[in-house]
Amino acid sequence: MDTTPSQLSETSAQLFKNIQEHICTKLEQLDGTGTFQSDVWERPDIHGADGGGGDTRILSGGTVFEKAGVNFSKVHGAMPAEFCAKLGHEKKDTDFFATGVSLVIHPHSPLIPTTHANWRFIQLGDKQWFGGGSDLTPYYLYEEDARHFHSVLKQTCDTYNADFYPRFKKWCDEYFYLPHRKETRGVGGIFFDYIGRDEDTDYEQTFQFVHDLGFAFTDQYLPIVSRRKDEPYTIEQKNFQRIRRGRYVEFNLLYDRGTHFGLHTGGRTESILMSLPPEVTWQYCYEPAAGSPEELLITTLQKPREWL
Amino acid sequence: MDTTPSQLSETSAQLFKNIQEHICTKLEQLDGTGTFQSDVWERPDIHGADGGGGDTRILSGGTVFEKAGVNFSKVHGAMPAEFCAKLGHEKKDTDFFATGVSLVIHPHSPLIPTTHANWRFIQLGDKQWFGGGSDLTPYYLYEEDARHFHSVLKQTCDTYNADFYPRFKKWCDEYFYLPHRKETRGVGGIFFDYIGRDEDTDYEQTFQFVHDLGFAFTDQYLPIVSRRKDEPYTIEQKNFQRIRRGRYVEFNLLYDRGTHFGLHTGGRTESILMSLPPEVTWQYCYEPAAGSPEELLITTLQKPREWL
Repeated sequence: MDTTPSQLSETSAQLFKNIQEHICTKLEQLDGTGTFQSDVWERPDIHGADGGGGDTRILSGGTVFEKAGVNFSKVHGAMPAEFCAKLGHEKKDTDFFATGVSLVIHPHSPLIPTTHANWRFIQLGDKQWFGGGSDLTPYYLYEEDARHFHSVLKQTCDTYNADFYPRFKKWCDEYFYLPHRKETRGVGGIFFDYIGRDEDTDYEQTFQFVHDLGFAFTDQYLPIVSRRKDEPYTIEQKNFQRIRRGRYVEFNLLYDRGTHFGLHTGGRTESILMSLPPEVTWQYCYEPAAGSPEELLITTLQKPREWL
Repeated sequence: MDTTPSQLSETSAQLFKNIQEHICTKLEQLDGTGTFQSDVWERPDIHGADGGGGDTRILSGGTVFEKAGVNFSKVHGAMPAEFCAKLGHEKKDTDFFATGVSLVIHPHSPLIPTTHANWRFIQLGDKQWFGGGSDLTPYYLYEEDARHFHSVLKQTCDTYNADFYPRFKKWCDEYFYLPHRKETRGVGGIFFDYIGRDEDTDYEQTFQFVHDLGFAFTDQYLPIVSRRKDEPYTIEQKNFQRIRRGRYVEFNLLYDRGTHFGLHTGGRTESILMSLPPEVTWQYCYEPAAGSPEELLITTLQKPREWL
């Protein structure tokens, strides 16, 4: 495998396109009626020059999925100095290249968790690295679902490095945290970044790791969807889902680096904000009933847990 | 009037309490059935010491108002260095005092605009200043409503300084702007800050200006509510309101300094986020029909207008 910077960027972009295609196909099969609509877009660089583009695929109002977005992008141009600094780079305008696939799936049923995943390859000046992860945000806690999601992740991680799963699981718990709510966004997963930026890295192996994570994603998530999708739920459970979706919005708009990066580098707004849930409620001082499943979820999210 | 720092802080806090009381009373009268519930809270400082507190008043599910919050707060403690820098102060931990009233009103009817107002007095180290403003966010554009709101503001401003209205109106248009949407949040109003911080200021007159603005607020907004509240509206108009409320959330969580200030200085989360609308929808790539009132609103918000 040719891992020179110019070639690795192209090979990675192709990988992410393939992952996108694979995931969209599997989601459509499970949904049964919903289909992804593709919006191919181009991005002007902040200086007006060609800045790459992407392919945003959205499924709205399916049988199982209320809103699912699986986005591919491949963008390049000048990175604003402010963001260079945030990425640990010298604070001056520097050329960057970024390609990745990013997805968020909001099912109708509050018994099915929302999920998010992203895998990316970035070049900034003379550095290049991979990052990514996937995490699960349930509205009702089924421990077996959390365990299943984590166990598929651990299996993939362990093939490469026994340290990966515990390290990246912890990173995920720390990253997807809402300090103003003192809660994690969900039951976690893995999150990693900067692999290859600061140390000697076998890029071929890292590429293969990201490849395997991308193609394992449907095995992590779809079995959970399958076992919950026909379970009946109540209006009260749907309302609780809408309230909890508010936390999802709060995280993405207040803290998520990917969202801020996209919006500040002239990304396509509708592709970035496709992560926001379709119907959301903010209710002042919502409190779950003592001993309820809603309370169980909230207390569970107050302290990261080992699921395996 | 005693305008020594220790006295001005107390007199201002009392003013903001009175404004809160006045506005809540008027809103309840107009609503007819909804009443404000008061939550008195205390705030631990970031170092755990007493940090003041507030009185959050929320009206939910009224006849006219779906959700209205009118909050008083009076807090003090150590200002994190990061925020000192943002406020133009030397970047080191410094004691601060802040008192103010902040309100957001979300009516049921999409024909009635949402409104927000805030008036505040802040002390940071050896500086002290007033800030504030109010603005209007319609879902359907009635020019007479925008003109009425602005004309009451201009009248109050002109009593003090003929420069105030044009300067503060422009400041409002610039502040309540969503760069990723290339839209203002609404049809504006006024926004001002730092009066008294850097120049010689007649604090008594500034206090009186803020006093007049606070007590004029109901004259700015309630006549608009009265003339729209009995007009029938459709489900489609309600849906459009929910989509536009998404922009409101985006502004408050991505850009609003008050929200960030509150969340980063250990403010009471539910009081800060009471500004978020009760029911919100994000629909991928929503486009209004050509020539529709929905399109008219959006194009109007793309370029600030003079309403008077």
